[in-house]
Amino acid sequence: MTTNISIFDTTLRDGTQGEGISLSADDKLKIAQKLDALGVHYIEGGNPGSNSKDIEFFQRIKAFNLSAKITAFGSTRRKNSLAEQDASLVRIAESGVPAATLVGKSWDFHVHTALQTTLEENLSMIYDSVAFLKHNGMEALFDAEHFFDGYKNNPEYAIAVLKKAQEAGANWLVLCDTNGGTLPGEIHDIVTRVRQELIAPIGIHTHNDCELAVANSLAAIQAGARQVQGTINGYGERCGNANLCSIIPNLQIKMNYNVLPEDKLRTLTGTARYVSEIANVHMPVGQAYVGNAAFAHKGGIHVSAIMKDSKTYEHIKPELVGNKQRILVSELAGQSNIISKAQELGLDVNANNEKTKLIMDQIKELEHQGYQFEGADASLELLLREAFGGESKELFKVESFKMLVEKTNGQMISEAIVKINVDGQQVYTAAEGNGPVNALDNALRKALVQFYPKIENIHLSDYKVRVIDEKDATAAKVRVLIESTGLDNTWSTVGVSNNVIEASWEALVDSIRYALLNMVKIDSAHADPQDRIGLVNH
Amino acid sequence: MTTNISIFDTTLRDGTQGEGISLSADDKLKIAQKLDALGVHYIEGGNPGSNSKDIEFFQRIKAFNLSAKITAFGSTRRKNSLAEQDASLVRIAESGVPAATLVGKSWDFHVHTALQTTLEENLSMIYDSVAFLKHNGMEALFDAEHFFDGYKNNPEYAIAVLKKAQEAGANWLVLCDTNGGTLPGEIHDIVTRVRQELIAPIGIHTHNDCELAVANSLAAIQAGARQVQGTINGYGERCGNANLCSIIPNLQIKMNYNVLPEDKLRTLTGTARYVSEIANVHMPVGQAYVGNAAFAHKGGIHVSAIMKDSKTYEHIKPELVGNKQRILVSELAGQSNIISKAQELGLDVNANNEKTKLIMDQIKELEHQGYQFEGADASLELLLREAFGGESKELFKVESFKMLVEKTNGQMISEAIVKINVDGQQVYTAAEGNGPVNALDNALRKALVQFYPKIENIHLSDYKVRVIDEKDATAAKVRVLIESTGLDNTWSTVGVSNNVIEASWEALVDSIRYALLNMVKIDSAHADPQDRIGLVNH
Repeated sequence: MTTNISIFDTTLRDGTQGEGISLSADDKLKIAQKLDALGVHYIEGGNPGSNSKDIEFFQRIKAFNLSAKITAFGSTRRKNSLAEQDASLVRIAESGVPAATLVGKSWDFHVHTALQTTLEENLSMIYDSVAFLKHNGMEALFDAEHFFDGYKNNPEYAIAVLKKAQEAGANWLVLCDTNGGTLPGEIHDIVTRVRQELIAPIGIHTHNDCELAVANSLAAIQAGARQVQGTINGYGERCGNANLCSIIPNLQIKMNYNVLPEDKLRTLTGTARYVSEIANVHMPVGQAYVGNAAFAHKGGIHVSAIMKDSKTYEHIKPELVGNKQRILVSELAGQSNIISKAQELGLDVNANNEKTKLIMDQIKELEHQGYQFEGADASLELLLREAFGGESKELFKVESFKMLVEKTNGQMISEAIVKINVDGQQVYTAAEGNGPVNALDNALRKALVQFYPKIENIHLSDYKVRVIDEKDATAAKVRVLIESTGLDNTWSTVGVSNNVIEASWEALVDSIRYALLNMVKIDSAHADPQDRIGLVNH
Repeated sequence: MTTNISIFDTTLRDGTQGEGISLSADDKLKIAQKLDALGVHYIEGGNPGSNSKDIEFFQRIKAFNLSAKITAFGSTRRKNSLAEQDASLVRIAESGVPAATLVGKSWDFHVHTALQTTLEENLSMIYDSVAFLKHNGMEALFDAEHFFDGYKNNPEYAIAVLKKAQEAGANWLVLCDTNGGTLPGEIHDIVTRVRQELIAPIGIHTHNDCELAVANSLAAIQAGARQVQGTINGYGERCGNANLCSIIPNLQIKMNYNVLPEDKLRTLTGTARYVSEIANVHMPVGQAYVGNAAFAHKGGIHVSAIMKDSKTYEHIKPELVGNKQRILVSELAGQSNIISKAQELGLDVNANNEKTKLIMDQIKELEHQGYQFEGADASLELLLREAFGGESKELFKVESFKMLVEKTNGQMISEAIVKINVDGQQVYTAAEGNGPVNALDNALRKALVQFYPKIENIHLSDYKVRVIDEKDATAAKVRVLIESTGLDNTWSTVGVSNNVIEASWEALVDSIRYALLNMVKIDSAHADPQDRIGLVNH
């Protein structure tokens, strides 16, 4: 029997303290579901006492019935007051979550300087606040803020703080290296000594100010802590919180603790990338375990050795965490994906085919230009169908488009003019929108609806813009990803240009082409061939 | 007397194995000078046996007479051959550098699988190659590749490898965790045991595949190693090499080793940012010690505490490594962030002021609309100056703008027309660009340059777009962040709209307003008031 470790994710709370990270209630709900699928044990949703966005999150999350425990965050009661009259604690109790984390001071210096109260009053604040949660039937986690700095300064007081929380019924005592300045050896020694004095289980919460948050978390676990608090991709204030994407595989694969089921561990890379997309934070290519270059090989000697045995330059099998090997010089990686994707579409393709090599080269060139097909399956399918399927019949042809954005007297106007051609018939039309892309979308639909009435049922459900090379400022390339919904289906397309309007247009046109192709296929399987896809002949 | 630690920088060699990192000979010469100014003890320049760029570097670097030892890199001789006939070793000896690092196998599995030779021949390869360098009067560092994996698999052989290098005269035995898969405890144990068997000084060379490279380097030093090999910002293959920017301050400030003189340590942040500029790699905002957010405070409670004493939420004084404290303004922040920001700008403000409450409400409302000021200090400064400083004199007024994007016959055209007013004088002009934002930027500058010639010196250095609420697809709001550079300064501005063109325009106008305001302030401090800011009266 291996030891279980509890994973407490605070991406939605401490993670949002990171510079440039801001999550809406919708974003938080999406991430919470992904974290639950990963199998973390606690998801800290936010602070219901501090803002309305978090209150909305706690209300809406209940409907999802997640397996993970959703927890609220707050502080111990204000000095010289009653816990049951503390508005913030009352809101936590009312938020309906089964567990809450309360942060309290354990460094005497902070009690004097930041709280400006006595050491005794701070102990009462901790006792009363934890007891209040317990009386409300909740699980209580006590985050001992600055515990290691506090212990080094005044070990008796730091231990007294923990004992007070334990006495009030705290289910977990979480030791925080709030300023991130402690070294792994110190963490190990102090956790070891704490465990001799207390019986409640110990958690660890570290920050990365010395680039040691992962090592510090492991050191605490080795000294007997049984919960790790951290965030996906290490998001958090200053240098970030401990990165769960590194801690989880280190504990499980390297140290043989029981953290997540194997099949869930394989979703780690996908989870990390999903969260970075939602948070719209660029993920460092070399991020441990889950980065795009974490198993990428560049040097010639390394590459020839890993072709003999991947163990020569890979510390684990990348598939264990859902990542994959990449060879940067001769980009063979991906070919098998392309082939299996094409076969899935029923296209005649094999690895030795001349066409396969051509399309591989084309995709490589497009990726080099900044296209990314991992998040744009429909654009990839269009490319493959064109190369292999002979299904390239153009359902419509774009002759030109024009975009006008104007601001006069504080009034914004966006107009688009498109000229398209369907089976030799030219349509020249215009539409307005509340932004340039919206106007283009409206104009394109307006031009096509007379030929393909069913495109009324399609709508754009997501729109993302990313600057690919930020160095070139406004002349930089942008990648636009568009997600569309309709036909009981959702699909994504991509466009790239140093002109955001052109990139958006490209993704829009791909999205409509994909939808029309699939309508043709569905409708030609039955019904009157003259009226297939609702096509009205003019 | 504290113990000296030798710093071996391999940014120019192992660092360039990182994905997306490529340095010309000129780049390498610039970085080498910066590293020398930082005070590192060894600078590994490259592999003179592998490419002409590195040969050029070694020839040209001599003229700079650096204090650091420049070292060349290579492998042990090929199997079944003579060291003095090995072209690569001969080129190292001829490169004129005083020291060289030779990498050799210490994992028996690698000898069999990658080298495909016998364990005995590998020992001879090591002996001969090190001895060859020593006969040529060079200092020899032996990099024992995969030492920790090798030791775990066959400790006798791994030690035999080190003994062979020592016997041949190696000055340093460097233990490499090449695959980055070893844990700090293992590193500590193995280095301790190695030291009992050998007399030559030990170095440590780690990789970051478990996000433990820094901790592993420190563990080796604690076990008696006396040299650390790493790179600036942790650049390197896969997840990178050990990051010297974290290791150096950890060793010196936290562990009291003697690494660099104090005044040189204060150049660490500047060095890290310089290297990231030359390598053209975006530096993570939260990088430990040297990142832009390493001492940035966002949470309101944190900010009010650091205003009482910065030790409350800072593990060291940022000035020790040449960094500085920053206060971020965000929805999570209380009033204290705004006040300290305004005070930093020298504005007359206090917490009880009615104006302070008004501006707080205004900022909250803007943040609710999707503005984010933590990454847009200049837009925030404009708001605060307007509220408190009476410095709201409009240097120019935008009457209207118009944007035209057109695609005909595959040709994209982006044109902007702007109408502005400076001191009652109207300017109506137009410009092209390679995208809509670029065209707007060009047109705005063209209209203003006759009044403010110095805006020629400003350029946009970064452009970011983020969709705030993706649910609304193409009708969603976007936030644009623009970074501008000039006046020996860099500043950021923000614009929000559901029209990407309008959001970009807003950030552009703020950026120029900020620049002009600061020019006025600089120029009005001296010189002829009639010609301040290079203003030509028409």
